Amino acid sequence: MEFDPALREEVKAAIDGKTKPVGSLGRIEELAEQLCLLQGTTRPNADSCGLTIFAADHGLADAGVSAFPKAVTQQMVLNFMGGGAAANAFAGAFGVTVRVVDAGVENPVDHPNLLVHRLGPGTANSAEEPAMSPGAVADALDTGREFGASWGFPVVAFGDMGIGNTATCALLIHKITGQRLAPLVGPGTGLDAEGVARKLTILRKAASRTGKLQPMQALSEYGGFEIVMMAGAMIGAATERRLVLVDGFIASTAALIALTLEPELRPAFVFCHASAEPGNKALAQHLHAEPLLDLNLRLGEGTGALLAWPLVQAAAAMMNRMASFEDAGVSGAH
Amino acid sequence: MEFDPALREEVKAAIDGKTKPVGSLGRIEELAEQLCLLQGTTRPNADSCGLTIFAADHGLADAGVSAFPKAVTQQMVLNFMGGGAAANAFAGAFGVTVRVVDAGVENPVDHPNLLVHRLGPGTANSAEEPAMSPGAVADALDTGREFGASWGFPVVAFGDMGIGNTATCALLIHKITGQRLAPLVGPGTGLDAEGVARKLTILRKAASRTGKLQPMQALSEYGGFEIVMMAGAMIGAATERRLVLVDGFIASTAALIALTLEPELRPAFVFCHASAEPGNKALAQHLHAEPLLDLNLRLGEGTGALLAWPLVQAAAAMMNRMASFEDAGVSGAH
Repeated sequence: MEFDPALREEVKAAIDGKTKPVGSLGRIEELAEQLCLLQGTTRPNADSCGLTIFAADHGLADAGVSAFPKAVTQQMVLNFMGGGAAANAFAGAFGVTVRVVDAGVENPVDHPNLLVHRLGPGTANSAEEPAMSPGAVADALDTGREFGASWGFPVVAFGDMGIGNTATCALLIHKITGQRLAPLVGPGTGLDAEGVARKLTILRKAASRTGKLQPMQALSEYGGFEIVMMAGAMIGAATERRLVLVDGFIASTAALIALTLEPELRPAFVFCHASAEPGNKALAQHLHAEPLLDLNLRLGEGTGALLAWPLVQAAAAMMNRMASFEDAGVSGAH
Repeated sequence: MEFDPALREEVKAAIDGKTKPVGSLGRIEELAEQLCLLQGTTRPNADSCGLTIFAADHGLADAGVSAFPKAVTQQMVLNFMGGGAAANAFAGAFGVTVRVVDAGVENPVDHPNLLVHRLGPGTANSAEEPAMSPGAVADALDTGREFGASWGFPVVAFGDMGIGNTATCALLIHKITGQRLAPLVGPGTGLDAEGVARKLTILRKAASRTGKLQPMQALSEYGGFEIVMMAGAMIGAATERRLVLVDGFIASTAALIALTLEPELRPAFVFCHASAEPGNKALAQHLHAEPLLDLNLRLGEGTGALLAWPLVQAAAAMMNRMASFEDAGVSGAH
């Protein structure tokens, strides 16, 4: 993704000409610049935002890596459909449209508004065997790409639901970036220290099953359906020059996959919050990401991305509603 | 402000019973708890927010403490009335109602929607003489209290406009808290290193004019009209149990004044953002405040408070829209 130097100058001049000391809106100015360049205009459109939540199960959950039982993935899909989850609450407050995709929950959910693109009844237990076939990886990426490209919002967010998915992400980051496994393993939904130690033992076993892997191989070995599909959706949306709001640890892992496959799409990505899950910090550093918010969140579902959406609206409002020094007859600095 | 222990337990149980791992919404949960306790309910009201911007001039500006000329205060008041400032842009994006008070701009502004409670044509130059009379301090606090108490929004934000007011705030914090002056003096709207050094020299002179002062004496010696009136408004609003969104360096100084005069009002205050103005860090520490946002802002006008308003909406939505584990039939942790 390349930007015309003339556009860069025009955008910078528009931002600096607004009635405020130069640079005084800090990261909102950076966000405004990013949005303007992505859309090729000084009058960006951030009128609407759509959140897609991808849900799937992880065979690893059966091995005991989570504080919650696997059945919760399905129960939470029903909660999303009923409008009762945190993501629904935040989306409702901010006027964000939500859709939910079953990418492979263990027990299928029957609901008229649920989008169904199941790659199986959850992945296999990656501590013992490959999570999914190479064909399923390709399918998940393609389906995700289509989801991301075809939904017409200028700003998009992606959320996850999948008991066990912080475990899967720790393995993916370890294999894709080469970072040490232990610092990437955390409490997820709320394991105590003993639980984290058990999770690490299971993940060491899973990691030792394979050697050095290419990214596509890592996805096949460790999954999961919702993570790979989300990575595809990020690629699809970014290719269409939609602004991609990246949530916490799971979504940042999907972003790692997306940007490993398509590094030139980086200008479309906004890293929204510094998840409390310990591995997120190392991942953010690897991605040269400085998350906008630090609110000690560790929920997922896209909740952290939703909380960053008003900042994008503010950035667009700065471009579209603020007067220039010239328009308003305000004196500049001495 | 005291809270019934039974209410505390009820609020905690309601938050922990929502369909999310306990504590996983981090600071949003803390904000929800604060709002619930303040309003005495588990179903808080954050349906609307009002921003009051207080504007006034500072005699210190004539001494050369700002990058911008004093005339900008009046020009920016007109910009607020025309809807072209950053505060208008953000408020418009988030549905926040804005009103502007002339607390003592050098040259009066004639506009039908401007609220006029002028305490004079700007304060006197506090490097040479007291900024305002003790009577004007009492008047500013009383008028502010009335402004804060009478505007019926459940959530309120306060903004400032006054060329030279970071200089005044540095002096106020220095005199009220006893902290050293130099670390409190920063670039304000954009002084370079030479400008900051000149500002410090002027402020040392102003500070040396007086010895140890009581808080009310400090306000009289150093001003400013908009800061004292804002402190009064915070007291008035907090007394009526409105949630007070505190913006950056100027508003935090007003909060310091308000909480020095009425420390029991602390539970109504939310510190919204870590201003880039260097003195704000020491001030936040003194107030035991952990600002919600860190976006490198240094504009004022209430812009940082406005960016925190959606977080309050999210906290209320968590309480009012989210299902409980019981309602949604979702399993708890193992």
